[in-house]
Amino acid sequence: MPYKFYRYGREKRIPIQGRSPLCRAGDDAYNLGFGIDVLGGKNLAWVLSRLCVEADALPAEYEEFTLRTWISDFNRLASTRNFTLTDSAGREFCRAVSQWCMIDFTTRMPADMKTVACMHEGVIVDAPSPCERPRRIRAVEGVVAAEHRVVYSDIDFNRHMNTMRYIDIMCDVMPIETLERMQSMRLDLNFMREARYGDVLTLRMDGDGSTREFEYRNGEGEALCRAAFEIRG
Amino acid sequence: MPYKFYRYGREKRIPIQGRSPLCRAGDDAYNLGFGIDVLGGKNLAWVLSRLCVEADALPAEYEEFTLRTWISDFNRLASTRNFTLTDSAGREFCRAVSQWCMIDFTTRMPADMKTVACMHEGVIVDAPSPCERPRRIRAVEGVVAAEHRVVYSDIDFNRHMNTMRYIDIMCDVMPIETLERMQSMRLDLNFMREARYGDVLTLRMDGDGSTREFEYRNGEGEALCRAAFEIRG
Repeated sequence: MPYKFYRYGREKRIPIQGRSPLCRAGDDAYNLGFGIDVLGGKNLAWVLSRLCVEADALPAEYEEFTLRTWISDFNRLASTRNFTLTDSAGREFCRAVSQWCMIDFTTRMPADMKTVACMHEGVIVDAPSPCERPRRIRAVEGVVAAEHRVVYSDIDFNRHMNTMRYIDIMCDVMPIETLERMQSMRLDLNFMREARYGDVLTLRMDGDGSTREFEYRNGEGEALCRAAFEIRG
Repeated sequence: MPYKFYRYGREKRIPIQGRSPLCRAGDDAYNLGFGIDVLGGKNLAWVLSRLCVEADALPAEYEEFTLRTWISDFNRLASTRNFTLTDSAGREFCRAVSQWCMIDFTTRMPADMKTVACMHEGVIVDAPSPCERPRRIRAVEGVVAAEHRVVYSDIDFNRHMNTMRYIDIMCDVMPIETLERMQSMRLDLNFMREARYGDVLTLRMDGDGSTREFEYRNGEGEALCRAAFEIRG
């Protein structure tokens, strides 16, 4: 059954930092037989290429909800994994679309897509993504809003900066009142290069108020990640 | 049944950042009727005063384990909540003891212990803490290892820096090789004052190699939190 459902409630509550929904992609990949346990042995890894998250409302403390995740398709460039969150009344209040590519760590290049094709057999769900897919974000100039050295608590098992830390640091340079007032939002993320342990990043920000664009660059001035954050209502 | 058991496995895997076990204190308090939902209405909140964590081994990715948590006692100063983690063979490999006090946010003083006494009726388990309780750590001088402004991604719903972020930043100033080699460890934490949003903290570190002591101070030079981190084996 390629649709996966997870119930979150008092006993399975999401941590405040909200890392769990994205972790479920890893859990599901594991259950489908192409998790990091299998890929690691082949020197392959899934790498997040684009992500968007849309929320109409934010769940209250202790509120129960259901997470649904499925793969809708894959092509030459990426495999698309979708998520929805539904409240106890069955109303969808959050959705996400993530696009993943596979990297061969021996060559540090995208892996042969035939490997991915065979892994996707029988696991594609014939259902569209739940919202407009991650959009392409153009170069961002703006002003330097933060400088950040990638430290131990930022990294995953590949020694790359974790997606949630990219989002954390963008939030940290926004006014706290904007974030605390937030009712609904849409966030688009494009990853171009990895941020590695010890790298010193600069974060550029353009726009203000409820619509902002961000770009992380490394010490060589190369763009690593771009984001568009729209706070609605 | 005052002992609480939680199973972690493929479907309930702990996030890498490992925030969940401590979150279970909140879940259990909620189920016992003195969670933040009830306390918030009375302007009361649990505040972590001391914590120790001891691990003989670290679980591998996807490994299943069981978390057990219980309250062993309370006194004039603190309520003691204990934790153990047991692997699928039934072997205990991690334990923690946490001491909590209750703060009245109207007066910003410790709450009347009689309130706590009545809340503890029938929930105390007659079993000792699973390891030596959090020890008192003396003032730490050493050298300034980091300066940190408390930002949005550091704080909890009280706008205080989250316990895990205290631990993250201590890890970030240690050599990554020491942390990656770590097989077993003991960490003691003493909290004296809250670190609030916007505060600029200095982190002092004394010792090196496998035994280090830390002290966070605020802009006024007051000690906020002290820690002793022992990496074994």
